[in-house]
Amino acid sequence: MPDHQQHILLVGAGLAGSLLSIYLARRGYAVDVYERRPDMRLAHMSAGRSINLALSKRGIHALDEVGLLDAIMDIAIPMRGRMIHGENSSLTFQPYGKDDSEVIYSVSRGDLNRKLMDLAESHTHVRIHFQQRCDGMDFAKRAVHFTDEETGASYMRSEDTVIATDGAGSPVRQSMEATPRFNFSQEFLEHGYKELSIPPGRDGGFQLEKHALHIWPRHSFMLIALPNPDGSFTCTLFLQQEGDPGFSSLDTPAGVRAFFEREFPDALALMPTLEDDFFSNPTGALGTIRCFPWHVGDAAALLGDACHAVVPFYGQGMNCAFEDCTVLNECLDEFGTDWHRVFAAYQERRKINADAIADLALENFIEMRDRVADPHFLLMKKVGLVLEEKFPEYFIPKYSMVTFHRTPYAVARRRGQIQQEILEELTRGIEKIEDVHFALAEQRISTRLRPYTEEAGSLR
Amino acid sequence: MPDHQQHILLVGAGLAGSLLSIYLARRGYAVDVYERRPDMRLAHMSAGRSINLALSKRGIHALDEVGLLDAIMDIAIPMRGRMIHGENSSLTFQPYGKDDSEVIYSVSRGDLNRKLMDLAESHTHVRIHFQQRCDGMDFAKRAVHFTDEETGASYMRSEDTVIATDGAGSPVRQSMEATPRFNFSQEFLEHGYKELSIPPGRDGGFQLEKHALHIWPRHSFMLIALPNPDGSFTCTLFLQQEGDPGFSSLDTPAGVRAFFEREFPDALALMPTLEDDFFSNPTGALGTIRCFPWHVGDAAALLGDACHAVVPFYGQGMNCAFEDCTVLNECLDEFGTDWHRVFAAYQERRKINADAIADLALENFIEMRDRVADPHFLLMKKVGLVLEEKFPEYFIPKYSMVTFHRTPYAVARRRGQIQQEILEELTRGIEKIEDVHFALAEQRISTRLRPYTEEAGSLR
Repeated sequence: MPDHQQHILLVGAGLAGSLLSIYLARRGYAVDVYERRPDMRLAHMSAGRSINLALSKRGIHALDEVGLLDAIMDIAIPMRGRMIHGENSSLTFQPYGKDDSEVIYSVSRGDLNRKLMDLAESHTHVRIHFQQRCDGMDFAKRAVHFTDEETGASYMRSEDTVIATDGAGSPVRQSMEATPRFNFSQEFLEHGYKELSIPPGRDGGFQLEKHALHIWPRHSFMLIALPNPDGSFTCTLFLQQEGDPGFSSLDTPAGVRAFFEREFPDALALMPTLEDDFFSNPTGALGTIRCFPWHVGDAAALLGDACHAVVPFYGQGMNCAFEDCTVLNECLDEFGTDWHRVFAAYQERRKINADAIADLALENFIEMRDRVADPHFLLMKKVGLVLEEKFPEYFIPKYSMVTFHRTPYAVARRRGQIQQEILEELTRGIEKIEDVHFALAEQRISTRLRPYTEEAGSLR
Repeated sequence: MPDHQQHILLVGAGLAGSLLSIYLARRGYAVDVYERRPDMRLAHMSAGRSINLALSKRGIHALDEVGLLDAIMDIAIPMRGRMIHGENSSLTFQPYGKDDSEVIYSVSRGDLNRKLMDLAESHTHVRIHFQQRCDGMDFAKRAVHFTDEETGASYMRSEDTVIATDGAGSPVRQSMEATPRFNFSQEFLEHGYKELSIPPGRDGGFQLEKHALHIWPRHSFMLIALPNPDGSFTCTLFLQQEGDPGFSSLDTPAGVRAFFEREFPDALALMPTLEDDFFSNPTGALGTIRCFPWHVGDAAALLGDACHAVVPFYGQGMNCAFEDCTVLNECLDEFGTDWHRVFAAYQERRKINADAIADLALENFIEMRDRVADPHFLLMKKVGLVLEEKFPEYFIPKYSMVTFHRTPYAVARRRGQIQQEILEELTRGIEKIEDVHFALAEQRISTRLRPYTEEAGSLR
């Protein structure tokens, strides 16, 4: 704990900012958090934005560290695998992990954020200031500019240490973009997304398997559905913006209905408000943001989507941001109040991994919308889980390294590529798991992969 | 020519904007050009910015099309090759092309820009408005915002067609960055640059070989020098910003002198104002800018550095921007006043090639600062020129395709990679050109490359 209480200013009380304020408060810092939106615990959330999230190992670890895990588990729904809805309305279940301990959890973004804010404010020295819009930062003066959205008044706050958790459109990062030699990229997919809904059944029950993430893979596009505690499912349609089919050509209620009748008849039967939802909810964009550096000396640092927004196809956006908090907290353990070293070490450990999960998430879009429907892909998935059982020190499937372990994302991506080659070799020309020549596998694995435990620490 | 005279607004009267205004005036358009800086024909240019340029085929072609080539050739100095200054002050000359017709030309940016402006304003319907700073564009209203830098007054100009030639920091592109799904990246090298100078000799003559581009390659950094008509040379030091050696550690006059004594003693002997130049000229950054799309419907388009700033190591920044003008003019030939089709075709033809020259320029930095000093690299260069002589329909060295031909950059890069493999195979373990097994070459070349003429048109 610092000698005299140091103040820290956070920009943004979303998931990452709220969690970080708790980590910092537990270390003895006084934290002021400035948030653009009104307090979501008082105001009603707007439609089309209540996206649910897939909580997995890294997020669980962070929530456990701050003591919030049990409360979140009470409102989370385990999803044991993918339920694939084929073009003929067939159903195929693909487990995510090796057993029922390896599951991911559907949680509501709003519920999770509210509980994080409550816990943050239970600390005497954390204050969240709502409806305060950040307009950028002057790094030399360590001054953050704000506008009070209720009164319209502009003002500035100076603080020795500022951490921006202000999301993909981060005003603090935009101020960094104007500094010399700041590297930045924003790349958008040709696909957008639209949130839709399946209500609870008449008896209040779930109309699809509750403990699964549902996917309707259709090659160039897909529909997914995640369960909510009230028996409903939140659905998301991922589709190209232009072309046919595409959001731009789905411009009438009849056209939307005909598209769903053709592509997703089993889902359509459960979606009484499809046309209304489709035209009242916005079409969202899907982009990847990368930048470097992530900090300006000891004055300011970026965390979460502000420095590494990713597409949602690995379910890791929140989990990665939470892991940022865990790692920043470790750096505070190591370097105390030397914020320059803290920020530099945090950047060193996280940048390479944020780049890796951005790439993994882009790659997984192809897998989700196309390859999950391929029997050979399913066979490779099964073989991967068998290899994990037989050679646990060498082989953990890529999805498992990312989702059920805290293997650094960069290590998971590199080992995942090698493992993919091995899986392709072992299953070439083979249709059943019984035909796989597992005796060959050991030699291939041990010559091309270092033992997992030996490598795990090599990249933070 | 359009039926009634259409007006076009250009933002920026730099090299690309001035040239484009001439192309458009020759088609019968009325053109208003808004330029942030004062008229360089009246004001004295600031020190450290009088960079000279290497004019080559694509730039020459454009200047010829608008009738300015002879006037520019009067003030241009042919450079026949690279003069390599070794670490022991040895000199090695590497010709650029197959004969004295294949040379590049050192020209002064200021002189070239002034002549382009003079020619532009000789057209009745071209007007250049100086000291008018662009503050961005509202695309829906087709309105460009300006501030008059003399009076401080802000105002707006609406025009059906706007083309932004406003450079790497383009305010019009920045307005595009805020539109949905605009892809953008800026990536900086760890190297910066500093302009320095070698004055004429006492007799007014050149103190180094006049008809060469001089390079002092030192692996991780380099010095270059280009001749000016007055007998001086403009030098540029490319060096890492941080580290030792690096701009940040060269912080005293004595330190700078010691660095030059150690690394560039022959140049130092010719640089009486080294320390003054070093500390009065700014350290520039070296970045690559990419973006997509390049136009907003028929309302606005970007051209030149505004959409594709590149690092200077292929000497193609200006040549590429001039080729943009040539291609846009071709699209006007094909699609007349249908500006949406004109802009879409221009983007389709140029984006892939702008990406290719950006990559080529980054790759050439390694070649210039490091590989040009390697005897094996010199051998491959010589073999490449022999292959061009023997198999002109298949093999034109990459540097020649980029510099002495108008081969699309993307084609030049792809063929260049294949040719490089062939050169490496033919010269493996060989030290003299006499030992090269040229009989082998024909078969390798003809199986791996399509005839040059057949491919040249396949990518614009």
